[in-house]
Amino acid sequence: MASIKYTYLFNQGNRGMKNLLGGKGAALAYMANKGLPVPPGFTITTQACNEYYENDCTIWPELQKQIDANLMIIEEQTGKQFGGMENPLLVSVRSGAPISMPGMMDTVLNLGLNDETVEVMAKLTNNRRFALDSYRRFIQIFSDVVLEISRDKFEHCLESVKKEFGIVHDNELTDQALENVIAGYKVIVKEHIGVDFYQDVRVQLDMAIKAVFESWQNNRAIIYRNLHNISHTIGTAVNIQSMVFGNFSDTSGTGVLFTRNPITGDNEIFGEYLINAQGEDVVAGIRTPLPLNKLKEEMPDVYQELYDIVKKMEISYKDVQDVEFTIENGRLYFLQTRSAKRTAMAALKIAIDMYDEGIIDKITALTRVDPEQVEQLLHPSFDSDILKDLHPISKGLPASPGAANGQIYLDAKTVAQKAGEGIETILIRHETTPDDIEGMIHCKAVVTSTGGMTSHAAVVARGMGRTCIVGCQNIELNYANRSVKIGEKIYQEGDWISVDGATGSIYEGKLETESNVVPDQFKTLMEWANEYALMEVRANVDNAEDAQKALDFGAVGIGLCRTEHMFFGENRIFDMQRMILANDKETRVDALEKLYPYQKDDFKAIYQVMKEYPANIRLLDPPLHEFLPKTDEDVKKLSSKINVSEKTIIERSIALEEVNPMLGHRGCRLAVTYPEIYNMQVRAIINAAVEVNNELHINLVPHIKIPLIVSLNELIKIRTELENTIEAELEKLNAKIDYEIGIMVETPRACLRADDLAPHCDFFSFGTNDLTQMTYGFSRDDFSKFSNDYMSKKILAVDPFAELDEEGVGKLIKMATDAARKANPKMKIGICGEHGGNPNSILACYKYGLDYVSCSPYRISLAKLVVAQATAFKLLSINN
Amino acid sequence: MASIKYTYLFNQGNRGMKNLLGGKGAALAYMANKGLPVPPGFTITTQACNEYYENDCTIWPELQKQIDANLMIIEEQTGKQFGGMENPLLVSVRSGAPISMPGMMDTVLNLGLNDETVEVMAKLTNNRRFALDSYRRFIQIFSDVVLEISRDKFEHCLESVKKEFGIVHDNELTDQALENVIAGYKVIVKEHIGVDFYQDVRVQLDMAIKAVFESWQNNRAIIYRNLHNISHTIGTAVNIQSMVFGNFSDTSGTGVLFTRNPITGDNEIFGEYLINAQGEDVVAGIRTPLPLNKLKEEMPDVYQELYDIVKKMEISYKDVQDVEFTIENGRLYFLQTRSAKRTAMAALKIAIDMYDEGIIDKITALTRVDPEQVEQLLHPSFDSDILKDLHPISKGLPASPGAANGQIYLDAKTVAQKAGEGIETILIRHETTPDDIEGMIHCKAVVTSTGGMTSHAAVVARGMGRTCIVGCQNIELNYANRSVKIGEKIYQEGDWISVDGATGSIYEGKLETESNVVPDQFKTLMEWANEYALMEVRANVDNAEDAQKALDFGAVGIGLCRTEHMFFGENRIFDMQRMILANDKETRVDALEKLYPYQKDDFKAIYQVMKEYPANIRLLDPPLHEFLPKTDEDVKKLSSKINVSEKTIIERSIALEEVNPMLGHRGCRLAVTYPEIYNMQVRAIINAAVEVNNELHINLVPHIKIPLIVSLNELIKIRTELENTIEAELEKLNAKIDYEIGIMVETPRACLRADDLAPHCDFFSFGTNDLTQMTYGFSRDDFSKFSNDYMSKKILAVDPFAELDEEGVGKLIKMATDAARKANPKMKIGICGEHGGNPNSILACYKYGLDYVSCSPYRISLAKLVVAQATAFKLLSINN
Repeated sequence: MASIKYTYLFNQGNRGMKNLLGGKGAALAYMANKGLPVPPGFTITTQACNEYYENDCTIWPELQKQIDANLMIIEEQTGKQFGGMENPLLVSVRSGAPISMPGMMDTVLNLGLNDETVEVMAKLTNNRRFALDSYRRFIQIFSDVVLEISRDKFEHCLESVKKEFGIVHDNELTDQALENVIAGYKVIVKEHIGVDFYQDVRVQLDMAIKAVFESWQNNRAIIYRNLHNISHTIGTAVNIQSMVFGNFSDTSGTGVLFTRNPITGDNEIFGEYLINAQGEDVVAGIRTPLPLNKLKEEMPDVYQELYDIVKKMEISYKDVQDVEFTIENGRLYFLQTRSAKRTAMAALKIAIDMYDEGIIDKITALTRVDPEQVEQLLHPSFDSDILKDLHPISKGLPASPGAANGQIYLDAKTVAQKAGEGIETILIRHETTPDDIEGMIHCKAVVTSTGGMTSHAAVVARGMGRTCIVGCQNIELNYANRSVKIGEKIYQEGDWISVDGATGSIYEGKLETESNVVPDQFKTLMEWANEYALMEVRANVDNAEDAQKALDFGAVGIGLCRTEHMFFGENRIFDMQRMILANDKETRVDALEKLYPYQKDDFKAIYQVMKEYPANIRLLDPPLHEFLPKTDEDVKKLSSKINVSEKTIIERSIALEEVNPMLGHRGCRLAVTYPEIYNMQVRAIINAAVEVNNELHINLVPHIKIPLIVSLNELIKIRTELENTIEAELEKLNAKIDYEIGIMVETPRACLRADDLAPHCDFFSFGTNDLTQMTYGFSRDDFSKFSNDYMSKKILAVDPFAELDEEGVGKLIKMATDAARKANPKMKIGICGEHGGNPNSILACYKYGLDYVSCSPYRISLAKLVVAQATAFKLLSINN
Repeated sequence: MASIKYTYLFNQGNRGMKNLLGGKGAALAYMANKGLPVPPGFTITTQACNEYYENDCTIWPELQKQIDANLMIIEEQTGKQFGGMENPLLVSVRSGAPISMPGMMDTVLNLGLNDETVEVMAKLTNNRRFALDSYRRFIQIFSDVVLEISRDKFEHCLESVKKEFGIVHDNELTDQALENVIAGYKVIVKEHIGVDFYQDVRVQLDMAIKAVFESWQNNRAIIYRNLHNISHTIGTAVNIQSMVFGNFSDTSGTGVLFTRNPITGDNEIFGEYLINAQGEDVVAGIRTPLPLNKLKEEMPDVYQELYDIVKKMEISYKDVQDVEFTIENGRLYFLQTRSAKRTAMAALKIAIDMYDEGIIDKITALTRVDPEQVEQLLHPSFDSDILKDLHPISKGLPASPGAANGQIYLDAKTVAQKAGEGIETILIRHETTPDDIEGMIHCKAVVTSTGGMTSHAAVVARGMGRTCIVGCQNIELNYANRSVKIGEKIYQEGDWISVDGATGSIYEGKLETESNVVPDQFKTLMEWANEYALMEVRANVDNAEDAQKALDFGAVGIGLCRTEHMFFGENRIFDMQRMILANDKETRVDALEKLYPYQKDDFKAIYQVMKEYPANIRLLDPPLHEFLPKTDEDVKKLSSKINVSEKTIIERSIALEEVNPMLGHRGCRLAVTYPEIYNMQVRAIINAAVEVNNELHINLVPHIKIPLIVSLNELIKIRTELENTIEAELEKLNAKIDYEIGIMVETPRACLRADDLAPHCDFFSFGTNDLTQMTYGFSRDDFSKFSNDYMSKKILAVDPFAELDEEGVGKLIKMATDAARKANPKMKIGICGEHGGNPNSILACYKYGLDYVSCSPYRISLAKLVVAQATAFKLLSINN
């Protein structure tokens, strides 16, 4: 053990040693090595943290020895002595894990003060107030983070002293008041730990180090790591650094700066600072910090030094830096540097600018825009300054981004009618059904009180780029009174609300939206993405208009074209309903024949747009009862239209009802019972394809997708039936055409039998919505009933309908993909569930080796960027 | 290739060569080797069949050569010549696969006849009628099975000749009539194949052999093999055997016998025969066969020879034989022998008798009773003779065996009331809910119009041994008129029907049931089963009474004790409903406290019966809305009882409704939202256990089971909560007790994460009902809507809710079990789904290495027998 190095002086490390020294330690090492003014200090390694746990949570002699040795060096470098009576060394103790992580111990400042050293400091600095203030801060922080004594007690003590002295702000505390505070704090400590506050500075230091180590295993940290799949054995480093004092004098101060503007991306230093203050004062917000320009005026030399250094740091790190600095008596020190957080707009501008400036290459630039942020660029939003002061009246799941205001209406028909009158509307429903499409098209935003991230409302709204929030649990609809109760307040139809699809928040009244203008840099970025995107990105679209949108956004095919929405048009729904209500095959076939021309025209329109791009058309999927009328009025209407008694319609509807429709008579199960439905659909597809091929002189290949397959027998039965129908049709047409038949892989069983199924499929398309439902046993329509509990109790980190569950659903996809590749190496495999538009899920698909992801047209840019980044990260890791 | 032996003379094979010679070929080889009078012949191997397919369906020279060589030997042995003009050799050609399989070509008799040999035969036998009759039979069969010409044409021709000659029965055909028939047949053949009927006997033989080979790959055979997981590469053998003629004279005949009575099991020869007939006449049922006793009178020598030989065959085969024989001119020949099919009673008696007689050992005896037949022994049944002539008015799924008659009633309350008046009732419902328990207890049988093999009605009825049929699709209930429409007929309450739970058939009126008396031999068999059953058999029971029943049937624990049924008692349901309707935790806890004593008493009663046997108690599982009142009347009653407005009750019920309750807010998800429910339950369990331990001075260990777990975080959260509650309770009681906490593994995700979950579980219990639902995406409540289509179209061989789907669900169980054993080798793993009572499923569990299966008390004997047989078969295969 003696040979292991557990401690690194800052100048002994380097910035590549993040795993051993933590993020903060590596940054300090980098700065120290560059010769920047960093207060001397050292880092205890993450390895030491892990061995601490193996040593029953004691600091063993070897580690003790190394700490002591390093302390001595710091003492030499600073000319101060830890606990010494001439020039006492004070230090800060900070945690610093390789991955930034909430829940861990933060910072202890001013460690090394005790009843004696505080007096030395007072004399030495000729500033008793400063010394006492530092001491009372130290006792308070140490008690909080090391001794775990509730902060309230100290605040209470401080307040009572302030009242006693008639003081309002902390910085007005007199020496006497501070002495009283210190005395009060000590009483609190003794009450809690039974002994006097620790005067031995070496004990103080050991306790702080142990506290940092132990915070690695506290509950908050463990739960966080479980949720984010972070290994528990990484450990945290500890940074011990000699103090410099921004609160020393009026030529002292502390501040934070960004090397470029993190909001606009402009190439200008941006930051703020406080004179005569320690870091925590900036955070506490007691005084308003000054803009950095002010420093240029006040201390031009310091500013220039700061400017020169941080610009060099930016170039060295090849990224915008977020830098913490302190000025002690006019002398500049750096305490921390890291990559700066930035807005979408800034991220984009900075990436392109830095490429133009020759600081980074194209691959690196590609990785600098968070794909999730792309949404912000493409959709309108509310002014964040206005939102800051507003309290949302409801909060749901952010199902589809964008910001919108409008007058609320409770049904699709009214929305369509009001929209016709030029009124801007928000459609609020308990949940939406295909019946509501008309309203969803005409409204500005959709809000539902139930449903999850893949509910009907969410899926359809995302598909049309409509702002949408689902599962707002505090919304109760009263259709009779045409009103909505949100929280405790009642809103009538026509009242204004504002809907923020990015956050899931709903606000009262009409908030102005800001339409983001897509900057030219975005086009540049997407062109670069195209160069590096190695996995195809297709779109989920159901009609020609959306197909065109998808191509405009850069899609190279349709991953999923649902055919059920096509049956809801005014003229079609009655024939659809007549087909469903048919008692015999003859009536059913007759009704299907009426639907045939509509279907053919729909497919033709799509093919005319997509041309030779692949377009996977999924045959009818939902249970038939979804198409039947829901209200008495609609039953009456249908009855007169198709000449079937209301009683029969109601009886048949009841007979078709299901306890668990998700697991019921739907998908290809419909084709087993009523083969004539799919037969009509494939005839429409084949005729449409043949006609478009002739019209445009192209060679498009129809891709036909069978939903909900669970077994080989089922597949063979249905595929044979389809092939026979197609061959007969082609013979009748005297035409030749290639076609592909594939399946939705969306039941766990299909994944488990992939090796059987693959040889009989031209392609696989994972339906991750249904697969998630069945793997978890979570109904997406009912999930919102308990998802809040699962999130708030940290059982689930993310909604598995929003982000692919790699541990469960992903495992099935991986298994199935590997088996299918082996059984049928030439088949295409992709996903077309809602996850196709989610960054982490797309990365998972890339990892599983899929050929494509498919998502709503509005997510295509995001998806392309993710796919390109996957390649970019791989290339970067090879180059490094 | 020249060295491979593709043909075996009967005396070259032996009975162990079933794979190569097929079942029939091996039996013929056995008999020939024993020196029994078997007409000479040879078998073409299954290997030849497979190579035939590799040779593009041609008979290649080597095979041809071997066939010719064998034919020559047969000619020598019989002194006849194939196609010869002196003494023509006629042969039969039969298929014979290693596994008996419908769909394959059957038998061609009299092959070798043509226009010339038929005349030689006529002269030689001095029986022109016999020769002509044989020829016309040959043309007809050959045309049917080899040339695939529809049988109708020949029947039509035969009928018109009979009409012309004024003949009623086939055996009255005169020579002239037969000549006309033959001429007519030849015309039909020529019309179909374009050439004259084949006169070259060698061509006849080749065509027959090819037809047998090719029938291996016909659609019916392929579908059958797919359905039953039989390899397609086994192939079929072909048996070519010289003909003997039961239709030669009045000292000729043909018959079938069993070496013991296959109905009663009595040790007596049992069979029947026809004088002057060929085998097909017996099947055709034109003449009534004579009992074998008659043969003893008519041909005592032949009878004695027959008797002596078949009794020896029985001893040699160590099993009852089903033997086909032919007598030609007073000379006995054997054509086939195989194990005899038998009734349950016979199987039992024969197994025990043969052991007593020293013919078989105990292990073999154990394997001789089909576990499914055990049901027949334990339940009453209808007289099969009576059923034969009756047509059922409805057919559903045979959910729970037994036979019952009674008067129909449509709701549980009426059934309970009528039962109180001494009336025997059948409860008919659309589907049952826990509300109907009272009625299910008091009726003779339960019938539902919807639902599958694991619907509520099916599960509960099986649990109580009540006869039950579910999913009768032609039943429509009219609660308003108190009537039921079955098919086209309307039945009123009070009308009699009879219900056969073994077959799923319902009959009109009151059929007498036969109560089977369980014979002593059954006890003997079950004692033997106990000796060899290496996997535990536990019971699924919910109360003390059933627990006692389970112990009586030989269960060694409770695999699943559901706690939800306990909440439906008159006094409890209101508190349960109050708990569910509670708006705050306080009211909920208060209602739970009222329920606590009931729960504790329930558990005490069970523990008092089970003592130290393990009893897995599953915490509350169903969604809460299942407990809420369904009718206006019940809402009213509840409202007055718990002082909550009807409006509130209805509103809350609606709020709790779910789109897919199976995938909704249920199982341990309830515990995440309302931890107080499980807390109450574990307190009741622990207190009950401690009290019973003290009362009985035992050391029972409570087994607590958490349902529907999907992730480690969920498990840890809930387990920690339960442990804290238990520890607090034990401290309060100042008691010590061991306890185990395990989980239901019933979601695909739990299977996929078994390695994570296992270290935190004391046991795993696979819930195969839910697992089947989620793996297939089949809702058990809705499955009946399309299951008929899946069965009739041969997509599914069996209902996956009745028999475990080994290819899908079983794969998950296997994966999970292997992973769990690795992660936590000491844990117990079992299944408690309905599959625990299904023979093939139990065998699968044995194969996966589970520790126990759990089933309803009435299936325990069956399960034990299956488990014992698994061991027995293994031991037998080691010994062989």
